[in-house]
Parts: sequence; structure tokens; C-alpha cells
Amino acid sequence: MSRRIRLGMVGGGEGAFIGAVHRIAARLDDRYELVAGALSSSAEASRRSGAALGLAPERVYDDYRAMALAEAAREDGIEAVSIVTPNHVHAPAAQAFLEAGIHVICDKPVTTNSADARMLEALAQQRGLIFAVTHNYSANAMVRHARQMVRDGELGEIRVVQVEYAQDWLAEPLEQGGQKQAAWRTDPAKSGGGAIGDIGSHAWQLADTIVGRPLESLSAELTSFVPGRAVDDNVQVLLRYQGGARGALWASQIAPGCANELRIRVFGSKGGIQWRQEQPEELLWTPLGEPTRIIRRGTPAASGAAARLSRIPGGHPEGYLEAFASLYSEVAEHLLAAREGRAPAPDAEFPTIDDGLRGVLFIEAVQKSSQAGGNWVALETK
Amino acid sequence: MSRRIRLGMVGGGEGAFIGAVHRIAARLDDRYELVAGALSSSAEASRRSGAALGLAPERVYDDYRAMALAEAAREDGIEAVSIVTPNHVHAPAAQAFLEAGIHVICDKPVTTNSADARMLEALAQQRGLIFAVTHNYSANAMVRHARQMVRDGELGEIRVVQVEYAQDWLAEPLEQGGQKQAAWRTDPAKSGGGAIGDIGSHAWQLADTIVGRPLESLSAELTSFVPGRAVDDNVQVLLRYQGGARGALWASQIAPGCANELRIRVFGSKGGIQWRQEQPEELLWTPLGEPTRIIRRGTPAASGAAARLSRIPGGHPEGYLEAFASLYSEVAEHLLAAREGRAPAPDAEFPTIDDGLRGVLFIEAVQKSSQAGGNWVALETK
Amino acid sequence: MSRRIRLGMVGGGEGAFIGAVHRIAARLDDRYELVAGALSSSAEASRRSGAALGLAPERVYDDYRAMALAEAAREDGIEAVSIVTPNHVHAPAAQAFLEAGIHVICDKPVTTNSADARMLEALAQQRGLIFAVTHNYSANAMVRHARQMVRDGELGEIRVVQVEYAQDWLAEPLEQGGQKQAAWRTDPAKSGGGAIGDIGSHAWQLADTIVGRPLESLSAELTSFVPGRAVDDNVQVLLRYQGGARGALWASQIAPGCANELRIRVFGSKGGIQWRQEQPEELLWTPLGEPTRIIRRGTPAASGAAARLSRIPGGHPEGYLEAFASLYSEVAEHLLAAREGRAPAPDAEFPTIDDGLRGVLFIEAVQKSSQAGGNWVALETK
Amino acid sequence: MSRRIRLGMVGGGEGAFIGAVHRIAARLDDRYELVAGALSSSAEASRRSGAALGLAPERVYDDYRAMALAEAAREDGIEAVSIVTPNHVHAPAAQAFLEAGIHVICDKPVTTNSADARMLEALAQQRGLIFAVTHNYSANAMVRHARQMVRDGELGEIRVVQVEYAQDWLAEPLEQGGQKQAAWRTDPAKSGGGAIGDIGSHAWQLADTIVGRPLESLSAELTSFVPGRAVDDNVQVLLRYQGGARGALWASQIAPGCANELRIRVFGSKGGIQWRQEQPEELLWTPLGEPTRIIRRGTPAASGAAARLSRIPGGHPEGYLEAFASLYSEVAEHLLAAREGRAPAPDAEFPTIDDGLRGVLFIEAVQKSSQAGGNWVALETK
Repeated sequence: MSRRIRLGMVGGGEGAFIGAVHRIAARLDDRYELVAGALSSSAEASRRSGAALGLAPERVYDDYRAMALAEAAREDGIEAVSIVTPNHVHAPAAQAFLEAGIHVICDKPVTTNSADARMLEALAQQRGLIFAVTHNYSANAMVRHARQMVRDGELGEIRVVQVEYAQDWLAEPLEQGGQKQAAWRTDPAKSGGGAIGDIGSHAWQLADTIVGRPLESLSAELTSFVPGRAVDDNVQVLLRYQGGARGALWASQIAPGCANELRIRVFGSKGGIQWRQEQPEELLWTPLGEPTRIIRRGTPAASGAAARLSRIPGGHPEGYLEAFASLYSEVAEHLLAAREGRAPAPDAEFPTIDDGLRGVLFIEAVQKSSQAGGNWVALETK
Repeated sequence: MSRRIRLGMVGGGEGAFIGAVHRIAARLDDRYELVAGALSSSAEASRRSGAALGLAPERVYDDYRAMALAEAAREDGIEAVSIVTPNHVHAPAAQAFLEAGIHVICDKPVTTNSADARMLEALAQQRGLIFAVTHNYSANAMVRHARQMVRDGELGEIRVVQVEYAQDWLAEPLEQGGQKQAAWRTDPAKSGGGAIGDIGSHAWQLADTIVGRPLESLSAELTSFVPGRAVDDNVQVLLRYQGGARGALWASQIAPGCANELRIRVFGSKGGIQWRQEQPEELLWTPLGEPTRIIRRGTPAASGAAARLSRIPGGHPEGYLEAFASLYSEVAEHLLAAREGRAPAPDAEFPTIDDGLRGVLFIEAVQKSSQAGGNWVALETK
Repeated sequence: MSRRIRLGMVGGGEGAFIGAVHRIAARLDDRYELVAGALSSSAEASRRSGAALGLAPERVYDDYRAMALAEAAREDGIEAVSIVTPNHVHAPAAQAFLEAGIHVICDKPVTTNSADARMLEALAQQRGLIFAVTHNYSANAMVRHARQMVRDGELGEIRVVQVEYAQDWLAEPLEQGGQKQAAWRTDPAKSGGGAIGDIGSHAWQLADTIVGRPLESLSAELTSFVPGRAVDDNVQVLLRYQGGARGALWASQIAPGCANELRIRVFGSKGGIQWRQEQPEELLWTPLGEPTRIIRRGTPAASGAAARLSRIPGGHPEGYLEAFASLYSEVAEHLLAAREGRAPAPDAEFPTIDDGLRGVLFIEAVQKSSQAGGNWVALETK
Repeated sequence: MSRRIRLGMVGGGEGAFIGAVHRIAARLDDRYELVAGALSSSAEASRRSGAALGLAPERVYDDYRAMALAEAAREDGIEAVSIVTPNHVHAPAAQAFLEAGIHVICDKPVTTNSADARMLEALAQQRGLIFAVTHNYSANAMVRHARQMVRDGELGEIRVVQVEYAQDWLAEPLEQGGQKQAAWRTDPAKSGGGAIGDIGSHAWQLADTIVGRPLESLSAELTSFVPGRAVDDNVQVLLRYQGGARGALWASQIAPGCANELRIRVFGSKGGIQWRQEQPEELLWTPLGEPTRIIRRGTPAASGAAARLSRIPGGHPEGYLEAFASLYSEVAEHLLAAREGRAPAPDAEFPTIDDGLRGVLFIEAVQKSSQAGGNWVALETK
């Protein structure tokens, strides 16, 4: 029996984008072995993809339900499944594997509506299974460091949170030309929303993980700028946090010059911090009245909480894939602990179905506010 | 008779900040000569300040009204006055000089309420006098360039405007320790508002000058974070422009790490631009689908509209004072044209009382929306 | 028989640094499988390390010579070996595997003297084996792009090359406290030189791969600043290229604030470029007289030569490990082609023993010039 | 009698560049009044320029010698003269004014040969006159701060100095098209050297002022890349400081993408600093083993030596002209002290003829080394 976790995958076949990222992430720290998959909704494409990945032919499935049943029945069956399909498939697929007793790692947003997310949360809890949601940016080392600074009170009382996630790849109607990634993301039935779900949910979660306190209410405006687009491609949200902090979230997929510009700034009574995903190695920290410090991953100043998400010395950039891999490794620690019947390392953390559900509730609140013309809407508590 | 414009000043005496800036700005391009002043509300301080500035003792006044009358009566009297007092004095002082037939250069926000601003606008128009408002950032060379790019359609249809102005100098209750600049700025009777007036008005005007189209409505939240503070120190505003563009404005004086962080990003269907006041020499421009270009002041790429606001070659940084001086020089061109009975150079532009009034209407709309809990409020047309 | 390349490793056991990097690099793109190793000069440490890596116990060797013989004799023996030991072991280890008919991937500098490098080159050529040297930075996507720009004449005639590699981790005498990485790197018998070998060789190779023309001569000064240090920790070199270009190379391990600051600028008659390893996603390009362009990995502007070294879209940072993995994948293409008896993809390139030898000749020229007080020394042609 | 210093100017008429900069610098802090000039070698151009500047016609001279005599004879004659001509005129003009008992402010390099500089130094000393050399970058606030840090031992023992000054405006043979600035700068008879004199001297002086210890020897290579150019346009120098520090200086006027890229890095045993002229508000400081700090002008962290060269709060960028003005203001303090027969403020410092002479000796050593094929040359002590 391998020391590696036996992993299956739903989605991620030919033409997919995020599936390959999940596979690299699972492989990078050598804690997983991909052994089974239902890689495409087309049986033929699934088989071709499985062969390309070196999977045993009998473990390449046409259908995720069949896969869940078959793998659960094998002695060497998968211990966890990664679900990397378009959003609308997350819920039924996750349900199938949970019901088969298999841990789940699912892309975000976890579902296209909160009812499904609640169902999954209850199911995972009932079965005692791990359910990770791949809000990968939360596993960046310097994000972990920032969160710890807030927890340790280094910023004082949190006052202002400015978070944004801007891209430009949908500034033109790619979906009308058949680009596969654009097509499902702009189809409300498959995505459950546009920019708000695809990247707004990441921005929300990044703020959530660093700031560590819930939203009280929000006022939002979703806009669709590209002619013919069926979903929002620009999102403006004003935020009121419990405890009095205020903030703003901006997400856009039509902002020329922004490739994947996820950025957060948090200001408290004692200091401020800033982090940019495109330059993830650095966390800018300004203690009030003092010079800004550039805290870098892999240096003594980042030797606390960030260190467990860091592989190589400072100045040797770790990036998107490494953070994604760190998330997978945090989950691996829990999966191995479950396998071995022990408690996981206390610092091993990752977004769970609880975060996934809260993310969907955030999306729904934004949509509700926007539909009401920008009224303030209270966040539904879980 | 000097070839220089004879300038007076109201405010700007001992302990003031912005008065010295105006004086440098007026001096830098050698188009003005400061010859008279009512420099302080204290007669003694005014005299000391006048002596320090080398003014003739008989042209240092105890009172701006006396100054207006006396200077208007002199053959060599001032041609224009710079008003650099706390905000609540702007309107009566400007009124006094306009009524005396003297052109006005006034700091921002031009008044503490729109009624006063309307009064001044009518008065200036009636008397045929120049009324400049020192939204100095609009005279940065690369801001002028950005505005020209929007006008020339280089960004296509404008979709999103993100503007922000963050500082940290009021993160603590300086006003309670008697710091003079903090004291009047946090006194609602003297300032007419907190961060929204002091810096939010600059942020609005920066967007206004570049984007060149009016706001339709806004939703705002003013917050006062520092205990005991009588005015807002943090401002969040969502913006709807006429024509469909959307945006957000954030202004804060409690953001540790932000010294004078005025920054704007404008995104259109064909490209995006970004400008930061703290690095004013560069305008980032990304034509959709192409690499970002760094357009620098003083180079061939900035040889159009920006060139008239540029003194020295690229790479020799011009900054805050130079932009302020450029505004003064643009006004000087109009003042000299008025003196000489000719038309000013067509490209010589600056914010006028019209912009000042619209800025006050913006502030009032923000305050109204915030007081109503964040409702959307239509912008009053002038 | 696996579709993956069967890989062995010499060195890289407990307490090593670069071995783990090679393993991640080999794993990231899933083209290798580590199946054997002589991981430490201590047999016990080698066994513990092998077990931790999940190697079959019979394929964990006490000694690289035994490993070469045993693996060559197995039907499922390794196809290639990664040599990641201190520098002085490179030559004998590489020799052993070449003589056993096994392809070699070797860390840099390839040997501690040029005689050894010449011997290896001859041996590899004679046996028809692949010999890759892991100058990993040359496999950064934007370095490949830069090289292509030079080849395509986009910079015109090359005039000036400024390359530098600065670190600070040896600013204090770590070696005297027993830090393992510092200890062998500052032991001339094991390293063959200090900063010049450890990082100067990388800087030379980065310039070499981009500029694509040989050095004619150099003038150098090696300095050892840390008291008691047995090797150079700071290197200054003036460069004369064949064809008339001039340049300077600076390498230092005592420069506080520089983590892993490898940076190159190349200026030609038609334009200039700049690349920094710590921000590897961007290549700055300035066509003479035009604005600087920020060319980013994963965007249309980097869709040529860089694309094959790129995995994910722009804005999702790829870093040090990805570049290292790209080098491994380029080698993999050659290894698979050799296995399959076909020609490799024409664009699949990597530094070979030829580059390794030229790098050692560069190091020796620097040492010779410095010992002679900074005289100009002609580069020995291979 | 004006409280302002009565200033004359030699050079700086129509078509000149640096004269206007000196005038703004003298005016900015209101400590000088330009009252006389011999503004051009053409009498007619001098008169037109004088009229444009509002000088009294009788104080616009055809010839600097006549000016020196006439002004010395006037009761209200100039107290100091700014010499802003091409380099070869510096020495005779300065001599004329010194002999007339008038203080001198002279552009750099102060002369085209060291014999002239020695003559001027002796003359100034003998007459007890002030002789300032406008190495303007040394008056940047953060350069002053950096110098103080070195003096205070905050960097420990200085080990490495990397200084560079790169431009691109001479990448093509502008002088062949009659561009006036290019023409005299590339005429060896007028400039005394190319890039080495024009910008290399600035780079040397920047290092000199911060590091505060003399060079022992250097090895240099001057190159002329542009076909037909009569002077060097690229300079490489290796530096040995007294006391053991090592360094490199690079100056180039053919580096596309570099507008006015003057940059210095100084590394000591306890920390490192970095400063870029194009972003002059920030000094990066890294105490060894700690995060880099961004020290900004106008903030508490820069409240010591830098404060006297700072006018406005941090975040309001001061740039090239402000630093130039700071130099003029430092000189003004000495001029006023001389006028008033008092000691100047102890912190008021500026480069003098001593620095000017040492700068010329540096240039000559570089030229000598380069002519000898790059031999190491000892710096002549003054």
C-alpha cells in the first residue's frame, strides 16, 4: 500500500484548465497519487485523458457516480476525490462521493446555490468526511502570515478592508467564439454567476481568511458590460463587518491590464498590510508611524505561520502552483491523520465546506442586493 | 510695471501648510510676484508672516476685506488673490475679492456648502472674473495625458473607474493634541466635512477630469473610526456614471502605510490606464491584449497634451510642487490674457468655480447618501 | 514499463538543499519517476533518506559507483541520474554513470576544474549520452523569450550587458557555526571557489544564454570580506564580448537586502531589456525612443519561444521551481527521444556539458585575472 | 537692499537646458534674485534672453569678463554667479568672478582638467570665496539621510558600492543632426570627455558623498559605441576604496529604457541601502537579517539629516528640481552667513571646489586607465 494518498478526479480532461493545476498541486509535494478519474462528461474524452495521464484503463470511468461506487468497493480504492468540473456539477458529484464514504476536495464556488452547500455540509458532517474547498490563495505563505498578524493583534483593531480581484480575459465576448473556459463561466446555469462567483468568491475568501471576522451586511452592484453576456462581468460591493470595520470589494473580468490582479489591503488602528497575488512573496507591513517593511517568504521575519507553507529560501519565488500545492498538502495532513486514526497537526488548515457555504451565501447576498438596486442586505448566518 | 502677475494671499501665515505650497507654486515658473497679504486671522501673526516674506508693510493687512478694498484702489494693486485659509473662510473671502474686481485662486473644497459655491459662480460670471480652484493633481502632466487619451477614444467606451486617496496621518486623534492642521480639518464648522472634503474631493475631481463625464448617482458610507472625532475619516462610495460606467471611490485618512496615496485606474473597452500620485511620472497604459506600456513624462510618448505641463526631460522627476506650479501657470496664461485683452492659449486649462461647485455637490450627495444609510442618491445637476 | 523516465539521484539526502529542488522539478511535469539513489556519503543517511522518499530498499545504494553498476545491470534500471552533491563529487560521479551508459543531469558548476569538465565532455560524446547541466534560470520562460528577441535582432547590435547575482546569506561566517550548506560552499576543496562558482557561474550562464556570443576577455577581482572565510564572497568582473559588446558582472553573497537577486540588462542599438529572477514573470522591453513594455509570461506577447516553458495563464506566477521543472522537462524530451530512437523537438533546449565546460573556463579566467591583480585575461576557447 | 541674494548667471540663454534648471532652483526657496547675466556667447542672444528673463538691460552683458568687472563695481552688484556654460568655459569664467571677489556656483564637471581645478581651488581659498559645484543629486533628502546612516555606522563596515548612471538619449548620433546639447557634450574640446564627465562624474560624487571615504585605485574602460562619436558613451569602472571596500561604477548614455537612471547600492557588514534618483523619495534599508524598510522623505523615519532638505510631507513627491533647489539653499545659507559675517548653520553642506577637483581627478584616472587598456590606476590625492 502506497504511502501516498490515492486520489481520484472528476473533470479535468481534454480542454480543461483547472484540472491540470489540481494534478500538479497534488503531485508537487508527493503526497498524492492519481489513480482514477471520470475526467470528462464525454466517455471517449475521459478515456483518452485517462490514458494520457497513465491511469489504469479500468479506473477511468464514464460517469462519476459509477466511479464513486466502484472505487468505494475496491480495497485499493481512492481515499479522496478532486472535483474540478464546471460549478453546477460540484454538488451532485460531491454528494455521490460523500455518500460512498470518500473524502472530497472541491473547486470553488462549492455550489451554485446555498441549499446545495448546506446539503453537502450536513452530509460531510454526518459521514465524518473531510471536505476541502480549493480557495487556493488562502494557502499562500504570506497570506497565512498576514492572517497570523491579525490574530496576534499586530494591526490593532481592524478598520478598513480593501480587496479586489481584476482580470481582463473576458473584456471581449470570448464565449460567443466558443472558447470553452469562457463558455461555461458565462452560462448562468453552469456557473451560478459571473465574475462574482468565479473570482469575487476568491476575493471574499481572501479577506475572510485574513480578517477573521464575519460580514454583517453589504451593498452591491453587478454589471454586465460586454454586449450579449448573460452574467455579470464587473462587481462592486461595499462591506460592513461585524465589529465595525468597513470595506470594499471589486471584482472584474473586463479590466485591461489586469491579468490576475488579486490584491488585499487591511488597515487597523496600529498598522496596515498589503498583499498582491501577482507578487506573492512579499507582504508589505506598515506599523503606524514607522517605515513600511517588506516581509518576504522564506526569511526569518516569515518564520512563523508562513513557514509551513514554504519550501525554498526567500528570493526563490514560489507562486500560484506552490500555493495550490500547499493547500493540497494541508489537506493531505488531515487525510493521512484520518487514515492513521490520529489528530492532524494543529496548524494544518484549509478552507472547508463551512467556508464554501459561507462563500455561496456571500454570492447570494451580492446578487440579492444588486437585484434590489443596491440596497444593503444582511448576510445570512450559516 | 512688472511682467509678473501681482498676487495677493489670504491665509498662509505662520503654522500654515498649504500657503507655502501656493507660494512656491506661484514662484516656480516666475509668472507671479507676491505683493500683498492678509496672512492670518491674527493681525500680529499676519504682520510677522508678511515681514518674513518680504512684503511691503503697508500691503500686509489685518483683514481680507480691508485688503480687497485697498488693493483694488491701488494702481499697482494685486491682479489676483490666492485664498488658502481653512475652508469656511473661502466663500466670504472670495466674495470680497470678486466684488472688488480681483481674480480669485481658491483652495478646495471651494466652499463648505453648495449655496455658497453657487453664489460665487454667479458672482464671478457676472463680474467676468477668473475663478480657479486648486485641484492641483489635475495639473500633473500624466493626468493631462490620461485625459487626452480618454478624449481621443484610446480606451474605447469607459466601463470602470477605480479611484482612491488614502492617507494615514489622522489614524490617531491628533486634533486632540492641538495639531493645527488636524484641528480645523476635523472641525465640521471649519472644514464642512472630514476625509470626504479634504481628500475625497480631490479623488472625485481627478476622476472627473480624466473620465470627462458626469456622475449620475452614488451610494456612500462615511465612517469616523478615531474615537472622539467629529468628522468622517473614511469614505466608501459606489459610483454610477452617465453613459453606464461604474466605479468606486475610497478616501481614508486612517490607512497606515499610505502617505498620500492618490491613485486612479480607468478601464474601457479598448484599454486600461493607471496613475499614482506618489509616482507621478509614469502612466501605465494597457491596450487590450497587448503588453502594458509605461508612458513617462518628458518622453516622445508624452509629447502631446502633457508636454505643456512638463519642464525637464523624462527621468528627472517632477512632483507635487511642479504640478501645483503648472496649475498656477495655466491660470497665469488666462490672467495675462485678461490683462492683455487677448484670448488665452486654447490648451491652457484649470479647474474653475464650475468644477468647484460640482465638487461641493458631490460632497453633499455623499453626505446625504451616508446619512440615509447608504441609499443611492442622484447627483444634483448644477 | 512506465511511460515516465526512470531517474536515480546521487546526493540530496538528509540536510541537503538542492536535492529536494531537483526532485520537485522532476516531479512537477510528471515526466520522471525517482527509483534509485545514493543519497548521502553516509550509508545510513542514504538508507533513511531513501526510505523517506519511498524508494525500494534494494535500490538505495551506499555508493554511487555501486549504484551505477547495479542500475546499468537491471532491466528496469535508471535511464538518467541527477547528481546533486557538493561540486567536487560531480566529476567522479558523472564519470561513473557515463561509463555505465547512463545519461547525466548534473548541478553546476559542472566540475571544480576545466580538465575534469573536458574529460566529461569527451566521455559523453564518445558514449553518445545526454549530459545536462542545471543552470535552471535559463529555463525561465521570459529568459527564453529574451534570448529569442536577441536572436531575432529586436535589440539590434548588442552593446552593453549588465548582469548581477547578489545574496546576503553569507554576510556572516555561517560556516564557522557548522551550517552545512555554508560549510561545503566555503571549502575550496569541495566547491572549487566561492561566490564565483556558486552564483557567479549562474550569472555568467544567464548572460551567455541570452546574449548568445562568447566572451573575448575579462578583468576580475575576487574579494573575501567575511573574516576567516577561505573563498571569495564578492566578485567584480568587467567583460569584453567578441564583436565589441562590453559588460560587467557582479556576484556577491554578502549584500544585505539581496535574497537571490539575479538580474540582467542587455542594451543594443535598437532597444534594451531587463529581467529579474525575483520577479520572473515580467520582461521589460524598451524599443529605443518608445515606452517600456512589460511583457508577461502567459500572455499573447510571450506566445513564441517562451510558451513551451509556461504552464498556466499570465498573472498566475510561475517561479523558481517551475523554471527548474521546465529544464527537467526539456531534458525529458531528449531522454524520451533517445529512448524512442527519434529526434527531439527542435525547440527543446537545455545547458549541456559544453555550457558546463565553458562555465568552468569562465570561473578559471576570473580566478586567474584576480590572482594577477586584475589583469585582462583572454577566455580560453573550448 | 533685498533680503535675497543678488545672483548673476553665465550661460543659460536661448537653447540651453541646465540654465533654466538653475534659475528654478535658485527661485524655488526664494533666497535668490537673478539680476544680471552674460547668458550666451552671442551678444544678441544674451540680450534677448535677458529681456525674456526681465533683467535690466544694463545688466545683460555680452561677455562674462565685462560682467565680472561691472558687477563688482556696482554697489548693488551680484553677490554670486552661477556658471552654467559648456564645461570648457567653467574655468575661465569662474576665474574672472573669483578675481572680482564674487562667489561662484558652477556646474559640473567643474573643469575639463585638473590643473584648472587646482587653480580655481587655490584662487577661491586665497580670496576667501565660496565655490559650490552643482552635484545636485547630493542634495536629495534621502541621499543626505543615506550619508548620515553611513556616518552613524548603521551599515557597519562598508564592503561593496554599486553605483550606476544610465541614459539612452545618446543611443543615436544626435550630434550629427545638430542637436545643441548633444553637440557640445560630444565635442571633447568643450566637454573634456563624454559619458564619464557628463554623468559618470555625478555617479562618482553620489557614491563619494554617501560612502565618505576616498578611492584608492580603479580600473576602467571607456567605449564609444555610436559610429562617428568623438567621446566615450559607455563607462565601466571597478573601484577599490581605501579601507578595503570594493565597487563598480557604470555610466552609459546608450542604454535604451534608461531615462536618467542614477542608482546606488551600498552594502556593509550590518546592512544595505539602495536609492534611485528616479524614485527619490524612498531609501530602501535592510538591516542584516531583517525585512527591508522603505524610508520615505517627509516621515518621522527621515526626520534627521534629511529634514532640512525637505519641504512638504511624505507622499507629496519632491523631485529633481527640489533637490537642485536644496543645493542652492544650502549655498544660500553660506552666502548669507558671509554677508552677515556669521558662521553658517553647521548642517548646511554642499559640494565645493574640493569635491569638484576630486571629481576631475577621478575622470582623469578613468581616462588614464582606459587608455592603458584597463590597468589599475591609483587615484591622485589632491
